[in-house]
Amino acid sequence: MEKNSPTRDRLVAEGLKSLVLHGFDGVGLNAILHAAGVPKGSFYYFFKSKEDFARAVLDVYERRADEQQSAIFKDTSRSPMQRLRDYFDEIGRDHLAEAPLGGCLFGVLSQTAAARSSEFRARLARVFSTWETELAELLDEAKSAGEVAPGLDTKEAAAFLIDSFEGMLVRLKVDSNQNALRRFQRMALDPLAIKRP
Amino acid sequence: MEKNSPTRDRLVAEGLKSLVLHGFDGVGLNAILHAAGVPKGSFYYFFKSKEDFARAVLDVYERRADEQQSAIFKDTSRSPMQRLRDYFDEIGRDHLAEAPLGGCLFGVLSQTAAARSSEFRARLARVFSTWETELAELLDEAKSAGEVAPGLDTKEAAAFLIDSFEGMLVRLKVDSNQNALRRFQRMALDPLAIKRP
Repeated sequence: MEKNSPTRDRLVAEGLKSLVLHGFDGVGLNAILHAAGVPKGSFYYFFKSKEDFARAVLDVYERRADEQQSAIFKDTSRSPMQRLRDYFDEIGRDHLAEAPLGGCLFGVLSQTAAARSSEFRARLARVFSTWETELAELLDEAKSAGEVAPGLDTKEAAAFLIDSFEGMLVRLKVDSNQNALRRFQRMALDPLAIKRP
Repeated sequence: MEKNSPTRDRLVAEGLKSLVLHGFDGVGLNAILHAAGVPKGSFYYFFKSKEDFARAVLDVYERRADEQQSAIFKDTSRSPMQRLRDYFDEIGRDHLAEAPLGGCLFGVLSQTAAARSSEFRARLARVFSTWETELAELLDEAKSAGEVAPGLDTKEAAAFLIDSFEGMLVRLKVDSNQNALRRFQRMALDPLAIKRP
């Protein structure tokens, strides 16, 4: 199956909008086909099934998230903790700008599709595990720079940042204001930094 | 519309299972009617619409959650912090026992139905706000008992506990193990308590 085609791209773009809004089982293929202006036959030319389609949307979403993250994480003109703060501020604002629409595809699919199959669950587990490793690496850099406590378990701290960020997004979708994001910054991010006199 | 009927109860019970698993738009009314053994006409006797049905399920879920919470919060034989820990341990284990099925209806509906209407969003906002107030009251008790720092913003701490608990549930559904729950306890709950020598 060809991976680069404007038709496939349109289907994936509409699929992403629909999946974060309605969850896996809430996605109507007909509505996506209509929005993308694509006939049904084309869908099955590109994707074997709805689950296969969701995986393709997840691939694209993950690649984009990774690009956005890398652009900040690799900018060594900023300290590691500054990069961490800037990163969560940027993605938090992106989600806020879309609220109550939008959301994090990882979180929404975890809640609405993880129970479908062990393969799908393993795919989502890999997403979180990779994200966790990358955040832990940045926290390790912050540790070397003396920005966080030398005894910090960076792997656990990274996993907790993801958990509390995903939970923050649940509330953000309901309140549609910046309260949950600011709370995440004060309660999850700030305590990681060593207080300077 | 009568609120107490075995038929209505069956519909709500099946609706709850289905809503936490598939999200609002993923719920198929026919499957619920079939599982509950109820003809379609009866559904519209009890509920005006699918949204009305989701609100009824939310009512029942909220009442049950409140009963479970009250039973622990009112048990003054335990210290306030012990009650808080026991509470999150109990509801966390309940969710773990059901993983990857199950989940928190508040969180799942927030992600899959908050964008539907401002009324539905307001309903969910009230759920979180009430929960937050009750947790903050217990934290105020803990403050009076000298179990948490005198300067703790109990309202903010309560809201953050909810956020990180909801996010923990996202990961729990994917990993289906107790790692995220233990992390929540170590990273969100433990830091609230004043360390005793």
